[in-house]
Amino acid sequence: MPPFGFLHMRAWASLFGQLLRSPRAVCIREVHFHSQGTRDLSPQQMVVREKILDMVVGCFKRHGAKRLDTPAFELKEMLTEKYGEDSGLIYDLKDQGGELLSLRYDLTVPFARYLAMNKVKKMKRYHVGKVWRRESPTIVQGRYREFCQCDFDIAGQFDPMIPDAECLKIMCEILSGLQLGDFIIKVNDRRILDGMFAVCGVPESKFHAICSSIDKLDKISWKDVRHEMVAKKGLAPEVADRIGDYVQCHGGISLIEQMFQDPRLSQNKQALDGLGDLKLLFEYLTLFGIAEKISFDLSLARGLDYYTGVIYEAVLLQTPAQTQESFNVGSVAAGGRYDKLVGMFDPKGHKVPCVGLSIGVERIFSIVEQRMKTFGQKIRTTETQVFVATPQKNFLHERLKLIAELWDAGIKAELLYKNNPKLLTQLHYCEDMGIPLVVIIGEQEMKEGIIKLRSVASREEVAIKRENLVAEIQKRLSES
Amino acid sequence: MPPFGFLHMRAWASLFGQLLRSPRAVCIREVHFHSQGTRDLSPQQMVVREKILDMVVGCFKRHGAKRLDTPAFELKEMLTEKYGEDSGLIYDLKDQGGELLSLRYDLTVPFARYLAMNKVKKMKRYHVGKVWRRESPTIVQGRYREFCQCDFDIAGQFDPMIPDAECLKIMCEILSGLQLGDFIIKVNDRRILDGMFAVCGVPESKFHAICSSIDKLDKISWKDVRHEMVAKKGLAPEVADRIGDYVQCHGGISLIEQMFQDPRLSQNKQALDGLGDLKLLFEYLTLFGIAEKISFDLSLARGLDYYTGVIYEAVLLQTPAQTQESFNVGSVAAGGRYDKLVGMFDPKGHKVPCVGLSIGVERIFSIVEQRMKTFGQKIRTTETQVFVATPQKNFLHERLKLIAELWDAGIKAELLYKNNPKLLTQLHYCEDMGIPLVVIIGEQEMKEGIIKLRSVASREEVAIKRENLVAEIQKRLSES
Repeated sequence: MPPFGFLHMRAWASLFGQLLRSPRAVCIREVHFHSQGTRDLSPQQMVVREKILDMVVGCFKRHGAKRLDTPAFELKEMLTEKYGEDSGLIYDLKDQGGELLSLRYDLTVPFARYLAMNKVKKMKRYHVGKVWRRESPTIVQGRYREFCQCDFDIAGQFDPMIPDAECLKIMCEILSGLQLGDFIIKVNDRRILDGMFAVCGVPESKFHAICSSIDKLDKISWKDVRHEMVAKKGLAPEVADRIGDYVQCHGGISLIEQMFQDPRLSQNKQALDGLGDLKLLFEYLTLFGIAEKISFDLSLARGLDYYTGVIYEAVLLQTPAQTQESFNVGSVAAGGRYDKLVGMFDPKGHKVPCVGLSIGVERIFSIVEQRMKTFGQKIRTTETQVFVATPQKNFLHERLKLIAELWDAGIKAELLYKNNPKLLTQLHYCEDMGIPLVVIIGEQEMKEGIIKLRSVASREEVAIKRENLVAEIQKRLSES
Repeated sequence: MPPFGFLHMRAWASLFGQLLRSPRAVCIREVHFHSQGTRDLSPQQMVVREKILDMVVGCFKRHGAKRLDTPAFELKEMLTEKYGEDSGLIYDLKDQGGELLSLRYDLTVPFARYLAMNKVKKMKRYHVGKVWRRESPTIVQGRYREFCQCDFDIAGQFDPMIPDAECLKIMCEILSGLQLGDFIIKVNDRRILDGMFAVCGVPESKFHAICSSIDKLDKISWKDVRHEMVAKKGLAPEVADRIGDYVQCHGGISLIEQMFQDPRLSQNKQALDGLGDLKLLFEYLTLFGIAEKISFDLSLARGLDYYTGVIYEAVLLQTPAQTQESFNVGSVAAGGRYDKLVGMFDPKGHKVPCVGLSIGVERIFSIVEQRMKTFGQKIRTTETQVFVATPQKNFLHERLKLIAELWDAGIKAELLYKNNPKLLTQLHYCEDMGIPLVVIIGEQEMKEGIIKLRSVASREEVAIKRENLVAEIQKRLSES
C-alpha cells in the first residue's frame, strides 16, 4: 500500500479518540427496528455516522467534488427501466392528485436526470443522502429499507480511463482510511461480459438475464447459478459450462494479457475494447500505487442495468478472527461507467459519459458499531465543555446569568433545569456526560468576586477572578 | 443586545469570507423548479446551506444537544390527528403491501414517537432533516413541498420555564448570529388563548377553529379574520369583537401585569396559569439579556394542534430598504411547549413534557441567496487547494504519480482528465474554480529534480526541490 497508510491510521486513531470517553458513558444500544423496515438512529449511532461521513466527504472534497442535492422523490417515469430485476423494490407515493411520484432508489439516476435537465456536460459531484428500497430487510447485513448512500461521480467526455482510475483511487483511500481490514476491489467491464456471453453462445436476448444470474456468484455457488441459467433461464448446458470456465478467472494485469490471447474472446470486438480499457486502467492504477488492491474478475457482473463499461466492487477480506464475530458484510463500495443514462433523460438523447462510485456506508456503520460493541468502546454524544453548578439554594438567577455569558462567548455549556439541584447530582451529571470542566458559583465566591473552576477528571479546583472566567476557560479548552 | 453581537459578526464575516472568491466565480443561479413542487439544490446553494446549517447546529451543540435521526416515513396512523387543519397536506405512500405509510410532516411528531417508543423520559436533542408537505408551492416565500427543518427540543419534567427560556435564547443566538437584520420574537401561551376565548364567550367546541382563524392574523387583516369567525365559523359578532380587543395587545412585562388585572381574564384559572408562567419566563429572559427582543402578543396562536403552553414565533422586522428588495419572509423560527404529545404515543398514556423550536432554514437560505444575488457575491463550490499542471505533451504519467502523492498527503488536488491539455486551459481552470496553487511539472524540471509552484492570484512562480513539495504546499496552505 502507498504511504497514506500512516496518515489514515492517525485519522482513524483520532476518530476513535474523539469517539471515546472515559467514565460511565453509554454503549451503542440496539434501537427498535420498526415493522416498516426502517429504524431510528440513536445519538450514539449518529456520532459514529457523522465521523465516518466526515471522512468520506473529506475524501470526495480532496478530489475536487462539488456537493449536489436532489429531492427524495422523483417523477415515477424517471425511475422506470433503470434498475433491471430490482424495479419492483421502488416505493411509489399514493396518487393524491398531480404527478405520479416514487421515492428515489439510488443517487445515480437523479444525478443523470439533473445533468440532462440542466444541460450540464461536465461535473464532478458528490451526494450524501437517503434512498429507499422495499427489500425484505436482512438486518444482520446492515440492510434496511431506508439507508444512506455516499456517491461520487464524474460526468463528461474525457480521455479514457483517467476518471475511472480516480474513482478506484477514491475507493482505496476511503477503505484504507477507515481501517476496516484488508480489502480487494474486483474489476470487470460490461463489454467483456457481453463479449463473453456472445462467444459462449448466449442469445443476445438473454444477456441481461444471464448477467443477473452471474451477479449472484458472490452469494450462491456456481452450481446453483448454473442451475438457474439452465433450468430457469433456458440456457443450453454446454453454453453455461463455457461461461463457467471464464467466470472462475481472476487475477491482475497478466490475466488481461491472457484474455487478449484467448482464442474465442479475442475474436469479439466489444471484449477487445473492454480489455484494452482495462489494460490502460491498470497502467494508471499502478501509477496511483494501488494496482495490487485490484483484481480483474470475470465473475463480477453488477445487477444494475445502466452500466456500459468498467464496473467494480470492493469486498472486505475476512480473516478467521473476524469471521468469529459472526458478522458478515460483503460489498462495501461499488460503481462503474454508465455512458448512456443521461441520454435517456435528454429529449434529444444527447449523451454525457459518466463514471462513479457509491460507498456502502450502512455496512461500514454496522462494522464499526459492531466492533465498538465487541470492544466495549464508549461514546460521548454531546460536546458540552463546561457545566455551571452551585452548591447553594436560590442561585438559579446567578447560574442563568453566568451560562448566558458562556454561551455568548461561544462556549458549550449546560446546567440542570432545576431551581435547587444538589451539588452531587450536578457533578454526577458531568461524569455521566463526560463534561470536562465545572464552574462552581456560591455565596462566598460571589462576595469575593471569584469563581471556582473544577476539572472533572482530576477533581482539582482552582479559584479564579470572576472577570477572567471566560478567558481562563478558553485557555484551558485550547490546551486540551 | 448582549455582547455576542461581536462574536457573531465575526462568524458571519467569516462565513462570507469562506463563501466569497475573486475571479470569475459562478453566481447562484435559479435552478429548475420541478412540476412536483420540489427542486434540485445546486452546488452554489449547497455551499450556502452547509455554512448556515453549520452555524445552526453549532448553536444546538453549544446548548448540549444530542443528534437524533428518524426515518423519512412513519406509520400513517402516527401522523393522524396531530396537525389540525393541515392534515390534508400529508404525503401518503402507495399501498404496496405491508403497513400504510406517510412521509413525515415535521420533526416534532417523530421525536415524540421516538421518546414514547424507547421510554425515554429526558432528552435534549436536535434533528436536521427534510420534511414533506403537499402545499401549493409559493416559491417567492421560499416554500417548497420538500424542505429542510432544524429542530431543537428539550423533553423532561423540569422546574417551570427554565428550558422554555433556553429555547428563546437559542432562537436569539441563531438569528443574531446569522445577521439577518432586526427581529422580534412574539410570545403567547395556549392557556391564555383558551382563557381569552372562554371569557369572551367562545363555545369550547369552537376553540380550535377560532384559534386557526387567529393564526392567520399575520397574513390577513383583523377585518377579514373577524369575517371568517362570524360568517364561516358562526361566532356571535359581539364575541368576535371582544376577542378583537385582546388580540391587538402586544408588549412586554407590563402587558403581562396589565392582563393579570384584566377584569375578565383574571377570573380564568387557565389564563392565570399562563400569565404566571409568562411572568417567570420574562424574568429568565431578562437574565439572559434578551427580554427586549421578546413581545408578549395576544394575537399569536400557532396553527398546530399539539401545543399546550408557551408558544413563540420569530419574525424579521423589515426596514423600508429591505422591502424594496420585493422580498417577503415572515416567520423564520417558531416553537412552543407540547406536554401531551408523547403521551399520545405511549400505550399507557405516560406523558413527557416537551418544549422546542424549529428554525425556518429554507426562508433563511432564501434571504441569504437573495442577498448574495443582489450584491453579486460569488461562491466557491469546491475546496481544491492545488492543481497539477504541465506545459508538455506525454506527461500524464508524471501528473498521475504526483497527484497521488498529494492526495495521500491529504492535500485537495485536481488535474484535467486529458492526456495532453494546453497549459493555458489548465491555468484558466484554476482561475475559474478559485484554486490558489498550481504545481507545474515539465521535462526540464524533472531533469533538475525540481518542481514549480505557482500562486494563481499573484502569478508568481518559485522552483522548489521535488522532495520538499508536499511540505512546502502544506506550509503555504497553513499560512493562508
